[in-house]
Amino acid sequence: MTHRAVAIVSGGVDSVTLAYLLRSEGFDLHLISFDYGQRHRKEVEYARRCAARLEASFDVVDLTSLRTLLRGSALTDDVEVPHGHYAAENMAVTVVPNRNAIMLGVAYAAAAAEGADVVAAGMHSGDHFIYPDCRPRFIEAFEAMERLSLEGAASPFPKLYTPFLHSFKRDIVVQGARLGVPFEDTWSCYEGRELHCGRCGTCVERREAFALAGVPDPTRYLE
Amino acid sequence: MTHRAVAIVSGGVDSVTLAYLLRSEGFDLHLISFDYGQRHRKEVEYARRCAARLEASFDVVDLTSLRTLLRGSALTDDVEVPHGHYAAENMAVTVVPNRNAIMLGVAYAAAAAEGADVVAAGMHSGDHFIYPDCRPRFIEAFEAMERLSLEGAASPFPKLYTPFLHSFKRDIVVQGARLGVPFEDTWSCYEGRELHCGRCGTCVERREAFALAGVPDPTRYLE
Repeated sequence: MTHRAVAIVSGGVDSVTLAYLLRSEGFDLHLISFDYGQRHRKEVEYARRCAARLEASFDVVDLTSLRTLLRGSALTDDVEVPHGHYAAENMAVTVVPNRNAIMLGVAYAAAAAEGADVVAAGMHSGDHFIYPDCRPRFIEAFEAMERLSLEGAASPFPKLYTPFLHSFKRDIVVQGARLGVPFEDTWSCYEGRELHCGRCGTCVERREAFALAGVPDPTRYLE
Repeated sequence: MTHRAVAIVSGGVDSVTLAYLLRSEGFDLHLISFDYGQRHRKEVEYARRCAARLEASFDVVDLTSLRTLLRGSALTDDVEVPHGHYAAENMAVTVVPNRNAIMLGVAYAAAAAEGADVVAAGMHSGDHFIYPDCRPRFIEAFEAMERLSLEGAASPFPKLYTPFLHSFKRDIVVQGARLGVPFEDTWSCYEGRELHCGRCGTCVERREAFALAGVPDPTRYLE
């Protein structure tokens, strides 16, 4: 019997590797991307191409009307994206409050509607110290909430599957290389220009992960 | 010191009474309505007028791109709205899975962004047996999840305020009458025609609540 997964895919290294992992595990796939007015919304096209390669269903959920509700975040506002390494001090401005709760809630609605077995998301250990909604405790609490929200309304109950929750990004790169992920067709940079800027937190993290993994980095960086 | 509340308001009896209650308790108000492609989206205009009367901020969040994800619900699809009294058997088709989790998640994002003290919603006891996401256990689990989601990202943490959770709809009508709620300017009917149909589950429930409350029902019903 085939199992079905609804996966949140941004088009970056982590979520594209997640999609390849799910496919290798035999899941039928429905990939969902979100347009929340992020500066780097070109990432959505990388998610779309990932879905096409994996013959997965694909939807972009338009959450741009949340923009006026989400003032004060560099990812959606005209605040400058901070440069340098990810660290609580300089990246807090990139937090869209409650973003994962909203995206997972939408993914669960889809999973319930189509009888999926799993909702999958790609958060990892490197996210924990800056994003409170990437921590194992949050993931557990979210799944517990969904069990109550969907009781009697979704059968089977879709489990929340976060296979990278206790991995570092370098481990994801190693796994992606094994799975044949075309890393050159993933997007990380928060700036959303033609090439990866090479300087924002997510570019620095991306570069470092390839170096630590010992996997050639096919990314073209601006500097 | 003034406190601020972000409240989910659909334009019906319960949520409009909720807004009047919050105002009477001295809260600064931000009312949020949702357009999720519901057949009865005219309710949004009732919410907008409620906000204008109470001098509250008001936003409509466009979730219509969720439509393709939410197949199989009579509120959003071309399934006929069932008539008769609310009961698990014939109203299950009106359940949009995970709707409250999504709407509350969006309200929490707004509350975090603007430093609100409270997120308020109007679910009541009559909702419990048909909507799993209106039960006290769900509400508790949702707030616990949000505490983790927003840790360090929202100060103060906005409490989840559901003052009608243990009330019946007739109690809400009694309270609304005391607060001077203009019930004629609220909308319940799922059919969204010019007048309340008088036959769908929510019309039957509305009529009954006024009768049980001993409050004159100003609603004009089609039949």
